[in-house]
Amino acid sequence: MLAVVYDGKSASLQERSRPRCSRSEAVVAVRTAGVCGTDLEILKGYMGFRGVMGHEFVGVVVEGPPAWMGKRVVAEINCVCGRCDMCTSGLSNHCRDRGVVGIDHRDGVFAEFVALPTANLHSLPEGLDDAAAVFVEPLAAAMQVLRQVKVESAGGVVVIGDGRLGQLVARVVKSVGAKCLLVGRHAGKLEAAEKQGIETVLAERFVPAAKAGVVVDASGAAGGLELAMRTVRPRGTIVLKSTFTGGGPNPAPLVINEVTVVGSRCGPFPEAIAALASGKVDVSSLVSGRFPLGQALEALEAAGNRDNIKVLIDVQR
Amino acid sequence: MLAVVYDGKSASLQERSRPRCSRSEAVVAVRTAGVCGTDLEILKGYMGFRGVMGHEFVGVVVEGPPAWMGKRVVAEINCVCGRCDMCTSGLSNHCRDRGVVGIDHRDGVFAEFVALPTANLHSLPEGLDDAAAVFVEPLAAAMQVLRQVKVESAGGVVVIGDGRLGQLVARVVKSVGAKCLLVGRHAGKLEAAEKQGIETVLAERFVPAAKAGVVVDASGAAGGLELAMRTVRPRGTIVLKSTFTGGGPNPAPLVINEVTVVGSRCGPFPEAIAALASGKVDVSSLVSGRFPLGQALEALEAAGNRDNIKVLIDVQR
Repeated sequence: MLAVVYDGKSASLQERSRPRCSRSEAVVAVRTAGVCGTDLEILKGYMGFRGVMGHEFVGVVVEGPPAWMGKRVVAEINCVCGRCDMCTSGLSNHCRDRGVVGIDHRDGVFAEFVALPTANLHSLPEGLDDAAAVFVEPLAAAMQVLRQVKVESAGGVVVIGDGRLGQLVARVVKSVGAKCLLVGRHAGKLEAAEKQGIETVLAERFVPAAKAGVVVDASGAAGGLELAMRTVRPRGTIVLKSTFTGGGPNPAPLVINEVTVVGSRCGPFPEAIAALASGKVDVSSLVSGRFPLGQALEALEAAGNRDNIKVLIDVQR
Repeated sequence: MLAVVYDGKSASLQERSRPRCSRSEAVVAVRTAGVCGTDLEILKGYMGFRGVMGHEFVGVVVEGPPAWMGKRVVAEINCVCGRCDMCTSGLSNHCRDRGVVGIDHRDGVFAEFVALPTANLHSLPEGLDDAAAVFVEPLAAAMQVLRQVKVESAGGVVVIGDGRLGQLVARVVKSVGAKCLLVGRHAGKLEAAEKQGIETVLAERFVPAAKAGVVVDASGAAGGLELAMRTVRPRGTIVLKSTFTGGGPNPAPLVINEVTVVGSRCGPFPEAIAALASGKVDVSSLVSGRFPLGQALEALEAAGNRDNIKVLIDVQR
């Protein structure tokens, strides 16, 4: 099968043998995959990952337990042991011995086929098309914010970063009726959010006033956390969703202003599927490029382009 | 009067005129002052401070409202406006227009006299001697940890940093019956904690295992936060008490492990006074040097010496 492989230096298209599945796994034929900011960080050395890239996808089960055969699915990315202290205390996303699809010691979905634990699979309702369903994983990550902080009572949430994740977080915040301001550097991307009724401001015109109760940093850069620290009010909360390589900002403002920082990663798949299926969160305006698997390297390059929000890779249709 | 003044380049002993007080203030004759890690950071440029240094002290009111005359006092360090959104919402420590004694736009206590708002004063019980009472401000800061996290149910607290603040935090954690491990780089300082029944380990022998529910970083260095991120368990809490100059560590582990960071600064004076007066927290073993005001520069140098825990400056006795 064709696959996009990162070898520690660069990504390339390679012929690989089709993966086999154990008794607790299924083989999924990938239909469409999404390029995430984390994929671009992996190209810079994040997590020291080696292997088939990619973790956002929609596919169809082609091998595995009969109950799953032929099902159109998405999958959670943490492949867990089920036995460690985290798994047995209900925190299996933090399994001590986990592999993470396309991110940490586990082949990913920029390929014709991928083997995944059946425990990770979620089947999709018929009405939800592939181009929306590919957003389930990042939308779940965005919805995790709602589990960690009370955005409704924050008196206004500021989201920093108009890229893939910031766009989703802003839509999620708005979907629960909370006031939201999206701060970004790209007029075109902010326009996509404005079409959803989200208030936006260009970063160069934004004056942080240390007044926001909740600030979400989805910028993917150290500058985003630095700006979040100047935007949040004393005793307020910063939800940190950005991972990036390199050093961080001086954290003294957190101490001086007694700010709480909540690290936030993966989220609830069933809620994300429901939000997409019901149209509560609309992602149609976010796809700005689609490439066939044979042009996956061009897709990665396009995803790094500042004008693109979400780039999809169409594998099998 | 004699005063220790920082001019942006270095500290020097200078003759200054005795401060006058407004109607809402009192003039306090300083008896003993304590050198804090923040004072040493100010010598490196922290907060861009200029003026009389120092914020930990015990003194006697010599001018001001009759009710305060002759009282032996300590004082909170945030001098607030009483009118801004923070002051009117019960968060006056975060006043938008505050001065901070010896730290931010307000002369400090390494001097014969200091003018302070009477609202900041706390009178001391007779049994509490000066060498213990000078710990009220930093002990209150240490006790703030108890207000921000439930250490009793954390199943063990790790405190990073065996200096002034780490020693106090460890004593406070132990005083409420919680299990505490103090991690430090100085065998002599760890010994002082062990005499109080606190478990300790040398940093070079400490193996972080990502298992601690609560980690307090009182190291005063970027490396302390980095170690805290490897010590705390997924979904655990880091209480950040360190301020330092320069960049911070990469915060990706906070996101990946969904860790909460709680910035923590000043704390409750009445509780700190009570804990010292009752002997619930014993600070007698922490004083490792005393200098007269005329040798304050030597006191600052001694406080920067890795073998010293707490250095006091005796002003008037």
